[in-house]
Amino acid sequence: MRIVVLAGGIGGARFLRGLKQAAPEADVTVIGNTGDDIHLFGLKVCPDLDTVMYTLGGGINEEQGWGRTDESFRVKEELAAYGVGPEWFGLGDRDFATHIVRTQMLAAGYPLSAVTEALCVRWNPGVRLLPMSDDRVETHVAVEVEGERKVIHFQEYWVKLRASVAAEAVVPVGADQAKPAPGVLEAIASADVIVFPPSNPVVSVGTILAVPGIREAIAEAGVPVVGLSPIIGNAPVRGMADKVLAAVGVEATAAAVAQHYGSGLLDGWLVDTVDAGAVAEVEGAGIRCRAVPLLMTDVDATAEMARQALVLAEEVRA
Amino acid sequence: MRIVVLAGGIGGARFLRGLKQAAPEADVTVIGNTGDDIHLFGLKVCPDLDTVMYTLGGGINEEQGWGRTDESFRVKEELAAYGVGPEWFGLGDRDFATHIVRTQMLAAGYPLSAVTEALCVRWNPGVRLLPMSDDRVETHVAVEVEGERKVIHFQEYWVKLRASVAAEAVVPVGADQAKPAPGVLEAIASADVIVFPPSNPVVSVGTILAVPGIREAIAEAGVPVVGLSPIIGNAPVRGMADKVLAAVGVEATAAAVAQHYGSGLLDGWLVDTVDAGAVAEVEGAGIRCRAVPLLMTDVDATAEMARQALVLAEEVRA
Repeated sequence: MRIVVLAGGIGGARFLRGLKQAAPEADVTVIGNTGDDIHLFGLKVCPDLDTVMYTLGGGINEEQGWGRTDESFRVKEELAAYGVGPEWFGLGDRDFATHIVRTQMLAAGYPLSAVTEALCVRWNPGVRLLPMSDDRVETHVAVEVEGERKVIHFQEYWVKLRASVAAEAVVPVGADQAKPAPGVLEAIASADVIVFPPSNPVVSVGTILAVPGIREAIAEAGVPVVGLSPIIGNAPVRGMADKVLAAVGVEATAAAVAQHYGSGLLDGWLVDTVDAGAVAEVEGAGIRCRAVPLLMTDVDATAEMARQALVLAEEVRA
Repeated sequence: MRIVVLAGGIGGARFLRGLKQAAPEADVTVIGNTGDDIHLFGLKVCPDLDTVMYTLGGGINEEQGWGRTDESFRVKEELAAYGVGPEWFGLGDRDFATHIVRTQMLAAGYPLSAVTEALCVRWNPGVRLLPMSDDRVETHVAVEVEGERKVIHFQEYWVKLRASVAAEAVVPVGADQAKPAPGVLEAIASADVIVFPPSNPVVSVGTILAVPGIREAIAEAGVPVVGLSPIIGNAPVRGMADKVLAAVGVEATAAAVAQHYGSGLLDGWLVDTVDAGAVAEVEGAGIRCRAVPLLMTDVDATAEMARQALVLAEEVRA
């Protein structure tokens, strides 16, 4: 079975670990969000791709969900001693090596997809990890801080401000000019199932869908497209998805997110059991819906979620 | 008193520390060798400039004479885990930060001289540290390895091969097209004394002198030019200067090095007391010469060497 997953960072990566356990024989292609990418200290940092790679490769800091295990911060301390920031982005020493290798390869002319493939030779994630695009896309957020309206990088909004102010708009800058990375459209076209994991519907899955051609390819693939709600009980399970949902005028409810994707794209949707009341609304919108436990408390629970998603896909197909 | 010093790495840096103690009120400008510079992992590494900066700024690893004190090697270990080398060049985590800042500033368009000045704001070395040139100069060495003649970067010869094979030629690639960095010729023209510390006469001082305009400016400055022999008892005190001296057809003796610089450039020369027999030969070549202890065993001994160099300069002037 060929499964394509559109993944952001922590939520997507953890779901993928469950999916691998649930479907060990499946051929999984991950289309990773690169709208979170940022240049820091002259280095190209791809937080979502790295989180997937480290999580599936056994190098992730399990507690925080991003960055490397057994990490140290000596390079960062030295950069701060030079007065060079930002200090709010936690780049560890081991993590730095990834960005140094990536930046060196990009400077040598390799596209991000080739770089990602090369990095994955070490991590052996057990999936094919593709960036959504080799072209630069950078999610920017319009905010009002102390009466001043300004546009900042997503990471500044998410990590520095911790989404503490309202997002007035979320713009994946460059997405409209970006082309899907080599292999992306082919993977979608030959997929048996397409899955939206409980990643952020706006700045993760939404950014991937903003690359011209990807949404269309999914809609036209003719295979079940199923998703898992990142919203449980009207709040994001993790992260601050409600903040960016508000920016696109979508309520932070499991049903609203399903309808945001829409029945033109989405065939099936899993909501948590606490949101069982939303099933009828989602089905009313033309999307098959089931209520199952959606907390990724451990790999087994996550694998069960993935199994339910695949069951739902078969229901849709039938 | 304005003193200009042409410095390589370890020897030059240690001498400068002695000079600062010997002449605390002096206005010292260091013209640093950049022929050792190398791009590693996409980063611009300037070993000699950094050794001067760290040594005078209190950040040097005292035992090895280069690199940072209290260093760790986590980034390097990770790079090796990605299969990315070279592994033979010991870049530590704290050191990496310097190269990251430098590379970022260079990429932003600042010349190396401005970058060096910015880095020195942190280290406050107590001297004005100028790269010999803002243009790229890279010392290459022609060697024969296993019957094959090839040209390698100086660092590969020095650090990887540890000068274990004969150097057939030493070429400062790019030097003939390089321009002295801003401030270099001005510092020489307004100097009261010019000093060649016991740095490598070929790949350190020699490379600086290979930048068109610098040798001429020194010769025409009309002030005492004094040097200290890096060769004691027909062997380099440290390093492998004999290997590269052979490549330029110069014997590894204190007298031969003085004559290699030549009386057209050099006015005074200090040899070690064990080489007192060379004094007559050097003076016969038109260079005033004195035999004094030249082992930089500690800062006090080094300060005394610097003092003797300044005394010799005054003798020359009178």
